[in-house]
Amino acid sequence: MKTLIKDVYVLTMNNKKDVYKNGYVLLEDDQILAVGSMQDLTKEAAYDKIIEGGHAIAMPGMINSHTHIGMIPFRSLGDDSPDRLRRFLFPLEKACMTKELAYHSAKYAIAEMQLAGVTTFMDMYYFENELAVATDEMGSRALLGETVIDFETCDTTEVYGGLKVAEEFIPKWLNHKLITPAIAPHAPNTNSPEALLEACRLSEKYNVPITMHLSEMDYEMQYFNEHYKTTPVEFLESIGFLKENSRLIAAHCIHLTDLDIELLEKFDVAVAHCIGANTKSAKGVARIHDMLAHNIRVGLGTDGPSSGNTLDLFTQMKLFANFHKTTLKDRGAFPAAEIVDLATMGGARALKLDDTVGSLEPGKKADLVLVETDSVNMFPLFDPYAVLVYSANASNVRDVFINGEAVVRNKRLIRYSLAALRETLYSHMGDFSKTAKIYAAE
Amino acid sequence: MKTLIKDVYVLTMNNKKDVYKNGYVLLEDDQILAVGSMQDLTKEAAYDKIIEGGHAIAMPGMINSHTHIGMIPFRSLGDDSPDRLRRFLFPLEKACMTKELAYHSAKYAIAEMQLAGVTTFMDMYYFENELAVATDEMGSRALLGETVIDFETCDTTEVYGGLKVAEEFIPKWLNHKLITPAIAPHAPNTNSPEALLEACRLSEKYNVPITMHLSEMDYEMQYFNEHYKTTPVEFLESIGFLKENSRLIAAHCIHLTDLDIELLEKFDVAVAHCIGANTKSAKGVARIHDMLAHNIRVGLGTDGPSSGNTLDLFTQMKLFANFHKTTLKDRGAFPAAEIVDLATMGGARALKLDDTVGSLEPGKKADLVLVETDSVNMFPLFDPYAVLVYSANASNVRDVFINGEAVVRNKRLIRYSLAALRETLYSHMGDFSKTAKIYAAE
Ligand SMILES: [Zn+2]
Ligand SMILES: [Zn+2]
Repeated sequence: MKTLIKDVYVLTMNNKKDVYKNGYVLLEDDQILAVGSMQDLTKEAAYDKIIEGGHAIAMPGMINSHTHIGMIPFRSLGDDSPDRLRRFLFPLEKACMTKELAYHSAKYAIAEMQLAGVTTFMDMYYFENELAVATDEMGSRALLGETVIDFETCDTTEVYGGLKVAEEFIPKWLNHKLITPAIAPHAPNTNSPEALLEACRLSEKYNVPITMHLSEMDYEMQYFNEHYKTTPVEFLESIGFLKENSRLIAAHCIHLTDLDIELLEKFDVAVAHCIGANTKSAKGVARIHDMLAHNIRVGLGTDGPSSGNTLDLFTQMKLFANFHKTTLKDRGAFPAAEIVDLATMGGARALKLDDTVGSLEPGKKADLVLVETDSVNMFPLFDPYAVLVYSANASNVRDVFINGEAVVRNKRLIRYSLAALRETLYSHMGDFSKTAKIYAAE
Repeated sequence: MKTLIKDVYVLTMNNKKDVYKNGYVLLEDDQILAVGSMQDLTKEAAYDKIIEGGHAIAMPGMINSHTHIGMIPFRSLGDDSPDRLRRFLFPLEKACMTKELAYHSAKYAIAEMQLAGVTTFMDMYYFENELAVATDEMGSRALLGETVIDFETCDTTEVYGGLKVAEEFIPKWLNHKLITPAIAPHAPNTNSPEALLEACRLSEKYNVPITMHLSEMDYEMQYFNEHYKTTPVEFLESIGFLKENSRLIAAHCIHLTDLDIELLEKFDVAVAHCIGANTKSAKGVARIHDMLAHNIRVGLGTDGPSSGNTLDLFTQMKLFANFHKTTLKDRGAFPAAEIVDLATMGGARALKLDDTVGSLEPGKKADLVLVETDSVNMFPLFDPYAVLVYSANASNVRDVFINGEAVVRNKRLIRYSLAALRETLYSHMGDFSKTAKIYAAE
């Protein structure tokens, strides 16, 4: 089945950053077959389906390299509270998060990402088996990491019980066409060295990715400094958690020393940079410029819907531009095209999916997004990268294809009704909302 | 004519920050007649028109306290170039900006603001008489300042010719119901002391506002330091430009000393804070927390469409939150409700329109916005302020009323077709675009 998408402004995001102002993208089944200029399109070729691009921008599907899809119910709760995670989120999660609630939240969160042009995401949460079912039903590409943490959680009555959950979860999903199971020790300070190494062992045993929060919290930095006179990264290296040819994706990495950066480079650790969540919570701006100079693989992440509040990468790209230019005191730093690269190929590299997705190139999987240019904020279009980074928002996304399948057309979900997804999620939020309001009033 | 807007989540933004979760707003002609809870609404009352709120958030129209509505054609041109203003924008403006282009740009920019829920703006540009015509046709509330600058411009062949233009422009528009004419010396370093004082005299003669860029540029700071051993603010005070009961609205004010802040307080200078434009250009983060502690009136501004790229205040609110929390190293700083206050009452106070607009209170003009809560990013709604600041974007704006008149319904302009406005603007951009591309290639 061949689908021609015609009359689009193609940003391939390939190595040469090829652009076709009046271009086309040709899909065959789940793959990209060809990309080029309309004038070079063979006239007589036959297509099963033709999609009118209407001068939309065609770009690779965006990649959200760190989120928590079970956390939609927490959004807009206690945003401005100090130590929100430990005082608010953890207790509420333990009290009220259920398998069903996580599943319905996941479907909603995935819908939100699809509508925003995010075609691949990496998750860290509980009940990942259920979240994998939700992901499969929604049709998104994902890496799903079961959380391991040093207290009883909503999905296990055992400390570090996530390890057992993961042992069951991972083998089940190893051969799914869109889903990669993973293991997710929550953070270095919320796991014992033994639990961290056991998570590492699981990652190696099944050859699956491993993800964690790293160098994010001030109390995390203090903890390692006080107990080990090290940084968290140094500590991980000291216990043998970092390995050559790592499949580790470390989220945040806000407080890195030069040595930390060298260690991440040495062990090829990828970084999921969540500029929105990091700065909303006043934690700081990670040293992305230095990391990239050390060839560290960097993707963009939204963090969970309660931390970053939106799950789209337009918000992250804009915040990335303004924060990094300001921090570096250089308006020319990170020109718009480099930021779009981080949201697409950068994420693909971080998740080691760069042979599969991240750019519009023949042979890659057909994950792509059409961003309409009709809305008031999308004119003029002298520089499409600048328009995407500085002017566009998630509502400009018109059509989204994942693995060759249309999941969003004309700004609406294809497989599901958004209203129905919300209604179902809401109907499972009764206890949660009641308890949340009690917590919020305290 | 009485219009009832029912079933809305009303954020009055009055002094007590009254909120009605299931509320109504009652308009009579150009005014707000009543605001309250649905349950307190007199059942038998008769209304000429009833608008179903559909659980939208009803909030005061937002106020953009600094922009340049003639500059839509510059958007997405040379965003990441160093010294963009002097190397790119000024020459291109002089070469290609015409009365017609400015007028059509203004209509487009005002449409963009209306669609984003901005009901009042303050402009600084050229051809303000034409921009006033555009504003009147579009039906927005505005303060319009004719630029005065030390070189020949697109609308005058004389140095400081804006002073003469303003002498004609201001008296013409003094009694308009929505438009307040103003004078706008461009910046302290782009005007002679005599020109600055003459602008001041015009402001006093007609009792109209005066606006300027202030303490924005590194070379501006250097200039005053080298020539006068002062800051720009101290310099303005030294020449008698600052007056008690000032009507001065100073845009940016990024680089203020403690003494500068005291001077702005003493002379009651308002500040138009453009966090997006300031940080995109790596200029820094203004000391808004300190300014507010000194009772300085602060509004939010987008700056022009080429500097801030969007003309909506959702983008500014989000950037405001993240930048100020991070700069203050305090996630609790500026809770969401305070940021919504800056976008509404803050702007009204800055522009001295706080008796007229800025909150939903009986007797004020009916400038209000309904933000739908159906879109995927608007759920859950535990805290409507947090949703507006951290999750919403301009595309969530559903209905907009200015002075009692609906200018946007169901996300579409009422008076104009957006496509037609763009087509007309585009048809006037031929020479501009050609020259811009030559400049961009240099
Ligand atoms: Zn996280
Ligand atoms: Zn300006």
